[in-house]
Amino acid sequence: MRKRIRDYGVTFGDFPTGKNNLITDVPGVRVGHYTLIKDEPSIARTGLTVILPHDMDIYDFPVFASSFIINGFGKSIGLMQIEEMGTIETPIVITTTLNVGKIADSVVSYILKNHPDVISLNPVVLECNDARLNDSKMRWLGEEELFKALENLSGGMFELGSVGAGTGMVAFGFKSGIGSSSRVIKLSESDKTYHLGVLVVPNCGRRKDLMIKGVEIGKHFEDEEEPKGSIIMIIATDAPLIPRQLRRLCVRATHGLARTGAKSTNHSGDVVLAFSNSMRIPRKRASLELTYIPDDTDLFQKLLDATVEAVEEAIIDALFTAETMTGVKGRKYEALPVGKVLNLIRGVIGK
Amino acid sequence: MRKRIRDYGVTFGDFPTGKNNLITDVPGVRVGHYTLIKDEPSIARTGLTVILPHDMDIYDFPVFASSFIINGFGKSIGLMQIEEMGTIETPIVITTTLNVGKIADSVVSYILKNHPDVISLNPVVLECNDARLNDSKMRWLGEEELFKALENLSGGMFELGSVGAGTGMVAFGFKSGIGSSSRVIKLSESDKTYHLGVLVVPNCGRRKDLMIKGVEIGKHFEDEEEPKGSIIMIIATDAPLIPRQLRRLCVRATHGLARTGAKSTNHSGDVVLAFSNSMRIPRKRASLELTYIPDDTDLFQKLLDATVEAVEEAIIDALFTAETMTGVKGRKYEALPVGKVLNLIRGVIGK
Amino acid sequence: MRKRIRDYGVTFGDFPTGKNNLITDVPGVRVGHYTLIKDEPSIARTGLTVILPHDMDIYDFPVFASSFIINGFGKSIGLMQIEEMGTIETPIVITTTLNVGKIADSVVSYILKNHPDVISLNPVVLECNDARLNDSKMRWLGEEELFKALENLSGGMFELGSVGAGTGMVAFGFKSGIGSSSRVIKLSESDKTYHLGVLVVPNCGRRKDLMIKGVEIGKHFEDEEEPKGSIIMIIATDAPLIPRQLRRLCVRATHGLARTGAKSTNHSGDVVLAFSNSMRIPRKRASLELTYIPDDTDLFQKLLDATVEAVEEAIIDALFTAETMTGVKGRKYEALPVGKVLNLIRGVIGK
Amino acid sequence: MRKRIRDYGVTFGDFPTGKNNLITDVPGVRVGHYTLIKDEPSIARTGLTVILPHDMDIYDFPVFASSFIINGFGKSIGLMQIEEMGTIETPIVITTTLNVGKIADSVVSYILKNHPDVISLNPVVLECNDARLNDSKMRWLGEEELFKALENLSGGMFELGSVGAGTGMVAFGFKSGIGSSSRVIKLSESDKTYHLGVLVVPNCGRRKDLMIKGVEIGKHFEDEEEPKGSIIMIIATDAPLIPRQLRRLCVRATHGLARTGAKSTNHSGDVVLAFSNSMRIPRKRASLELTYIPDDTDLFQKLLDATVEAVEEAIIDALFTAETMTGVKGRKYEALPVGKVLNLIRGVIGK
Repeated sequence: MRKRIRDYGVTFGDFPTGKNNLITDVPGVRVGHYTLIKDEPSIARTGLTVILPHDMDIYDFPVFASSFIINGFGKSIGLMQIEEMGTIETPIVITTTLNVGKIADSVVSYILKNHPDVISLNPVVLECNDARLNDSKMRWLGEEELFKALENLSGGMFELGSVGAGTGMVAFGFKSGIGSSSRVIKLSESDKTYHLGVLVVPNCGRRKDLMIKGVEIGKHFEDEEEPKGSIIMIIATDAPLIPRQLRRLCVRATHGLARTGAKSTNHSGDVVLAFSNSMRIPRKRASLELTYIPDDTDLFQKLLDATVEAVEEAIIDALFTAETMTGVKGRKYEALPVGKVLNLIRGVIGK
Repeated sequence: MRKRIRDYGVTFGDFPTGKNNLITDVPGVRVGHYTLIKDEPSIARTGLTVILPHDMDIYDFPVFASSFIINGFGKSIGLMQIEEMGTIETPIVITTTLNVGKIADSVVSYILKNHPDVISLNPVVLECNDARLNDSKMRWLGEEELFKALENLSGGMFELGSVGAGTGMVAFGFKSGIGSSSRVIKLSESDKTYHLGVLVVPNCGRRKDLMIKGVEIGKHFEDEEEPKGSIIMIIATDAPLIPRQLRRLCVRATHGLARTGAKSTNHSGDVVLAFSNSMRIPRKRASLELTYIPDDTDLFQKLLDATVEAVEEAIIDALFTAETMTGVKGRKYEALPVGKVLNLIRGVIGK
Repeated sequence: MRKRIRDYGVTFGDFPTGKNNLITDVPGVRVGHYTLIKDEPSIARTGLTVILPHDMDIYDFPVFASSFIINGFGKSIGLMQIEEMGTIETPIVITTTLNVGKIADSVVSYILKNHPDVISLNPVVLECNDARLNDSKMRWLGEEELFKALENLSGGMFELGSVGAGTGMVAFGFKSGIGSSSRVIKLSESDKTYHLGVLVVPNCGRRKDLMIKGVEIGKHFEDEEEPKGSIIMIIATDAPLIPRQLRRLCVRATHGLARTGAKSTNHSGDVVLAFSNSMRIPRKRASLELTYIPDDTDLFQKLLDATVEAVEEAIIDALFTAETMTGVKGRKYEALPVGKVLNLIRGVIGK
Repeated sequence: MRKRIRDYGVTFGDFPTGKNNLITDVPGVRVGHYTLIKDEPSIARTGLTVILPHDMDIYDFPVFASSFIINGFGKSIGLMQIEEMGTIETPIVITTTLNVGKIADSVVSYILKNHPDVISLNPVVLECNDARLNDSKMRWLGEEELFKALENLSGGMFELGSVGAGTGMVAFGFKSGIGSSSRVIKLSESDKTYHLGVLVVPNCGRRKDLMIKGVEIGKHFEDEEEPKGSIIMIIATDAPLIPRQLRRLCVRATHGLARTGAKSTNHSGDVVLAFSNSMRIPRKRASLELTYIPDDTDLFQKLLDATVEAVEEAIIDALFTAETMTGVKGRKYEALPVGKVLNLIRGVIGK
């Protein structure tokens, strides 16, 4: 993992970040990766990333969630039930396209280990396609790999760039990977502190379109036509939002994405999923008391705004942290040349 | 208003009705009609019906709401904002198609009377087309007529059949009108009592398709091709549901509708709107405590089931209570011949 | 497979059926089952059913499709891309809940066999839960089983009842299975003949709610509380409809479902998928000429109506054709007692 | 109307513009304004803008259309039927929030003039709120004003900035108005030329967020908190797209909007409507032949991309062309200071 863009003094937006500027700054959220890089029997450049909404049993205590599809050329699964019931009941897994089926099956295995009587389960598996670098038809990943990622969960620091689901990602013609960012919202001294974190897997965008801090970076490089590709964006918060409100956050991920120059091409699966871990909803409880933050509050507006800037930063950070990789057919995707990019940005925005 | 179907001992479903078997059995809900029947300067057979979710100021205290479009050949307005914000902030008005614009404008006038500084308002006006009987291009209804309906609000008994928005309605080739019904849900002696009420304006259905209590009534009458037409269905409850859950109730109105034989023809605007008046949401409040009934509870399942049977009964009751009417071009729509229908039903289901 | 309900002279609706009253009456549509019934190493009562929209390579020639979710408590996959792109590019597979991941993976294998360079694929796998009879956590079904079903495709007669995806189904407290039905629409002698076929997998409904031909059959049996359960409904046509229109057909499946007494309970995954095989859309073609049937035509209205009656019949036929089965924990689900049911129906609707 | 941004040599994106860089570059599309500015009996700073999809009778020949709601805090009407039927059958009118009802009614009057037998009509009236400058509760606009705009239709040049629906608009704390732009797509010499045009009414955005050509312009001005506000975006094309595809274009308007720094605040009604006038669909025709451009073509991808850049340019152009205005309560909204802005842009992007 290379240095993050904030390490160079470049910031995004108005809100302070959380402690680590990671989705895990939302208390309770944990992330784990499994990365597979090998050349035999064929080229593997793949992996998966797991996100747990909180540190309790997610099956016993689902959380509110919602999603938004910017462009639905994608194979993500589990979203239908989230929309109907407003909850997530499994870990969220992100992996490569052709591997979705096996990983969904592995999520079933994982839950059955601790809940052997479960007969109905809604695995949430989102995907970006790593076939530019990975021999993806091998579908390398299964139970063993998922379980390893679940043993590696961290509620603090975790790696970014070419790891986990980010291993084989390419965005704007450069090597991409996992990006993350967070924001802290505190309305006043006496008010509670709320957190919003995002984790993104950018695998989209044409080089010529790349924009960082408003600077048309892509114009300074030779174009490399890569019109296909997708992006998964996960939004986590500890603010007590209900599903309808979480969907509204998801829509704002579009604005963050657009600020990087991406245009959601025809063959793009641009999928956003948001959850709040404020409520942990026990099963078979007759009723629950919950706190409702009306939409016309300062807090809710700030959550919308924080989403835009956190998503923008996380996407760019995925490019900053990812490293050059060579994969199938000898294809090589260069890491973003940070020196040149920083010069371009500083030439424009100063400092 | 003729006798209701329950007056003949015919019942629908498993739940007890509220006191009056009306939407106003949901505490706080009020209904008002304005009916216009005249022959000069041309034929008016029209009206409007107003529903207030509670007895406080609806602009100051919006309520949670959601909608579902079974078939969107309709001109109802206000639903977009309900879906985004999850709330209703005006009276709900039902009227005839070409009059929607004037009535939306009149709702603005009504709110401005008490809230002169309002600059943004989302009127909710739903519609069915009374042009079979009414010279609807005259657009008879405006502020004066709306205000009269709002002066006539009742939280108890109100008229059904050929009144208000039901004045010019035709369903299954028979004269139709306003229908209503309610259900009471009490899980146990010690549990709170919840109410669910519906108000429907059926203006849809072909005669041959009419089914009452499962009996194919329509087959016993000569068909009268009336494939066009719509239905508005309003669901009210005092159970503390959030918008996502209210939408789920709305979907079940389809099942109630289908049990009457209606098939939602191509040119039908079949629109369902549900609200809960349990929470009255003050503006500019930083947060609110609310009770959440999870979807996997007995109570929520019963609310779904109660919706189906209340909608079915209300549609049939609109036919039972409406009276024969003659309108434009001398067109006459006969009231449902109750004697014959009851004989058919009793011949089949006994009693 | 027991006798079908039409074999007893009971009919549904106004349109003539196709030759076999099956979804395969739509020219080109093919269906295949794989059924697994064994008691070692544990109880298997499961299977899968495959539907091919036409007799060409479905990956090379996708067809227009759309879906509608009546109730989204379900784990079906592939619908997101169908909504975005309007096409299906794989066989449609129906199987049991926990087996969806493995079967999605097997669909990838199937397509890769003939198209080894495919790197992105949208498998469509729909599900109903057979865990009442099947030890479903074993996830018995994989590539081998899918491929066998694909070798067994028939464009004519195929089995109904407790086979394929219908093997472990239970509906209204009775043994259920695969149901199918079709309708033929011919506007005039000189007009083209169009076909509409449905295939349903009913695994839903409470016994007390069962209604056949409007007769409340369920009331004549002791109730057996089975509130959980789902239904998958597939609609096929050779009428040249575009995706928006196919979605409109899907909505009408609700009306057919409701006419059987089912109410789409909270824990029901009621999913409808419709396709037209009229256009077989080659990839990478700059443009295509297509015939558009406007929605305000007689033909389109008849397609809507035919959907309602074909769905109703297919659901009931699944109960008529399925046979008594004993499964896990010695649970026994009785076949619908046809004699008693026919007596009840005939007592009411005559002959 | 001040000079347009292109007049200063600043361009957006990769595609050539149409002849006038206006939505009317799409052959057949016509635009008309009505502007009302007066100080008695109270302050009027309002207007309406009308868009006709083609130069035939729009009621007799509806066109394919679809919409997308970025944020639904808005009162636009007519979208429900567009989504169901896929067509527009009236002029599209844009006006101010509280005036929507009267204008919808006026659209009915307009159609009835030429089609006296119409009994069902779906007016499309979209809105942005001009109450910052206009005494909007007066609802100044009605039949007379609508008809005048319809007499003023132009298929070529039309005015931008503070006219028509743009009269009272404010965006990013500056005076805004009507913006428009167009793009021409020609795949090869031998290929047909297609046009895509947009018309926008930006009334949204906080000053601090304003971004032009990626340059954070807003940071160079004192902020003026105006978090409320909306934007209407109309997309027109002569490429033969069906409604599902038109919706996909609408989604890309979000990307164009986001590139100006707007973030779709909580109280924003951000509504996109797209139509193709390639097919003019006669009523009651049994079938029509139409050309279908598959989504996986170069042409369709270019239409997506062209939407993003045309929307971005049109929004900025609305700011460039609008002029300083004073309105209710002596409120003054300054025109964008073009000199300073151009210096900022040129300092950054050169030229």
